Amino acid sequence: MKIKNAEILCVGTELLLGEVINTNVAYLGRALARLGISVYHTSVVGDNSDRLSIAIKGALEHADLLILTGGLGPTYDDLTKETVASALGLPMVRDEKILSEIEGYFTSIGLPMPENNAKQADIPEGAIALPNKLGTAPGIFIEHNGHVVVLLPGPPAELHPMFDESVFPRLREMSDKILVSHNIHIMGMGESAIEEVLFDLMKNSQNPTLAPYAKESEVRLRVSALARSEEEGEKMCSEMIEKVKNSPVGKHIYALDAERIEKLVVAKLKEKGLTLAVAESCTGGYIGKLLTDIPGASAAFAGGFITYSNEAKINLLGVSPETLQKHSAVSPETAMEMARGARERLGTDLAASVTGEAGPNPDPQTGKPVGTVFLGISSAQETYSVQVKIPPQRNRDYIRNVATNRALREILIFLNEI
Amino acid sequence: MKIKNAEILCVGTELLLGEVINTNVAYLGRALARLGISVYHTSVVGDNSDRLSIAIKGALEHADLLILTGGLGPTYDDLTKETVASALGLPMVRDEKILSEIEGYFTSIGLPMPENNAKQADIPEGAIALPNKLGTAPGIFIEHNGHVVVLLPGPPAELHPMFDESVFPRLREMSDKILVSHNIHIMGMGESAIEEVLFDLMKNSQNPTLAPYAKESEVRLRVSALARSEEEGEKMCSEMIEKVKNSPVGKHIYALDAERIEKLVVAKLKEKGLTLAVAESCTGGYIGKLLTDIPGASAAFAGGFITYSNEAKINLLGVSPETLQKHSAVSPETAMEMARGARERLGTDLAASVTGEAGPNPDPQTGKPVGTVFLGISSAQETYSVQVKIPPQRNRDYIRNVATNRALREILIFLNEI
Repeated sequence: MKIKNAEILCVGTELLLGEVINTNVAYLGRALARLGISVYHTSVVGDNSDRLSIAIKGALEHADLLILTGGLGPTYDDLTKETVASALGLPMVRDEKILSEIEGYFTSIGLPMPENNAKQADIPEGAIALPNKLGTAPGIFIEHNGHVVVLLPGPPAELHPMFDESVFPRLREMSDKILVSHNIHIMGMGESAIEEVLFDLMKNSQNPTLAPYAKESEVRLRVSALARSEEEGEKMCSEMIEKVKNSPVGKHIYALDAERIEKLVVAKLKEKGLTLAVAESCTGGYIGKLLTDIPGASAAFAGGFITYSNEAKINLLGVSPETLQKHSAVSPETAMEMARGARERLGTDLAASVTGEAGPNPDPQTGKPVGTVFLGISSAQETYSVQVKIPPQRNRDYIRNVATNRALREILIFLNEI
Repeated sequence: MKIKNAEILCVGTELLLGEVINTNVAYLGRALARLGISVYHTSVVGDNSDRLSIAIKGALEHADLLILTGGLGPTYDDLTKETVASALGLPMVRDEKILSEIEGYFTSIGLPMPENNAKQADIPEGAIALPNKLGTAPGIFIEHNGHVVVLLPGPPAELHPMFDESVFPRLREMSDKILVSHNIHIMGMGESAIEEVLFDLMKNSQNPTLAPYAKESEVRLRVSALARSEEEGEKMCSEMIEKVKNSPVGKHIYALDAERIEKLVVAKLKEKGLTLAVAESCTGGYIGKLLTDIPGASAAFAGGFITYSNEAKINLLGVSPETLQKHSAVSPETAMEMARGARERLGTDLAASVTGEAGPNPDPQTGKPVGTVFLGISSAQETYSVQVKIPPQRNRDYIRNVATNRALREILIFLNEI
């Protein structure tokens, strides 16, 4: 059968109570979009068999493919499998192979298998069980009466590999379309102004589509083409991208399909054979954390200093007490001395620093309003500072996020210019 | 009117395509749970007026309160407000006060107001406009024909303050119930084993309820009581907590309502008047980032070192080259020298270190499998190391998260024992 559209149904009272942020629906949404399978509706229901049953039947009226997440665990409130089987009119059968795998899992962690885990080996008749590398609940893939119904475990660490390895390849066979997408990144022009210029393309072009998304300090235009092949989709997208480039928006484009900025920084450092150190005050280690998210960062990122207190700035980085006294810790002078100190102490080619007021309350010692941030960049040739102004009504998390992001961007700008 | 149940409807094609993770539904779910307002169903629809209209009408058949998020922006695909007005049979009227606020917003950022922003000043007749401190889209609060319909902007930074300040207080007046919840934290006993012991309470107690959630390295039991007052709810919860304490699960309880561990660490350090430094290798600054998430952390957290390379471990922390040579960077010996070095260099009472293999590929220099992590703790009295073993099939993010979490927990254990 061919799949044209899908619905995602997440099961779990913890999702309704807001105890868990639902990331599965975004993960699955991205994958289905890549396959050109349209998702018009997703929903969440609690661990309640009656309401789940109504939601399953409702979804199957509209969708070729129904993906359910959650409710596959061993406890009495895990009832997705039984409810799906009953809604489809399928009996449950025990799968001895799965049972022995579950027993093996418990043996491997040195525990006896609790009796109620055995029910995880029951699957609807005719279904395919999908292996779970990281837990005991197998997934389920059912093709029945012109529908495909897929059941996946709720924990993302279990869902991601199971979906990628056992579900995506099967769905790929069942879809004859592919969505090709590209992002145009724009700085220095707001969403409304862009729309005034590109209104006709945004409003009237159905395939490919052109849609704006406002982000912190940039606007993204997403170009998406639904095609029969990658080649056809790429061609449709390039034509649209050319139209945007040739419009008055064109000169504000700064990147096409930008990756995570920390990945760009590590790649550019490696490309140029340079090493980096950081000195972080208000960001407290966040820049280092993001850079080391990237496997292999060690080739370019030597390390750094978290200098939250004035004493740490003096003792670890050699910031002069006079500078702190005269200009305060939140100043271009301190930012520059921090960057220079980090670079010299770690013997790197380049160093970046951040110092600022993240709030919630301004520090009387600095006299600077919340949201004031100074970045420092230091190389053997030059050391300079850049100010970032963030509205003071923004909260601490936001200010620290923007400061971190801007520091990574300044490093990238520096690397692109040398 | 009194509100008993609610539905949340999030609008945005970007949510269906998985470009944005939907955190609004969890934020609103938590708030409604506190008010004892039941949410049985939430859903997401794209920027399509017909499907949105069907979803609105469907939701109003079941729910007293409908909260919509997203689609309040200035562009043509922002159509939530118009679709709601039409579904409720209300005409749109221009609010001159909002119009002048939007004009004022653009004046304050030094830009002319684009013409299409004016439509943000249109609201359904009889509705209350809710001020937006951080953007141009006002929220909308409508009481109409026995229903309450609330429209909130999609960006969480705009939604949170608007909901907290303008919506929560109004809903509180309209609900006569309150949900009181507590978490029982359990280590050393699995979810299935706990259920075997507490099956009767979990299955048969309707109010208060008792429900298990498995987390990394712990199980949480959530006790929730729906009551007419806080006092009544607290009493119902304590009775249930006593029953769990007196069961065989009791001896595995390690905390009640544990807060974020970094918050506990900062509070305990302040309480004892002690200072902390960190030395991070595979976590790359993540521990420092989490500690400095807490406002006022500077009183207890002096700072630290990100020593990703062997050179940084030697030069910044004084780890001996012989130790690295003999035991490798991923060893108890290196972890202890890192912690001691950080403590001495920052002059703190206490220091913690992390060194480990986060993957994806093992480092041939250390010869240790992915997932091997050593923590170091150093005070003037003692320096020791703790090993953390994480299954190697876990990914880099997971390993770094667990390493960070366990380091914070070791600091807390140390502080609790001295």
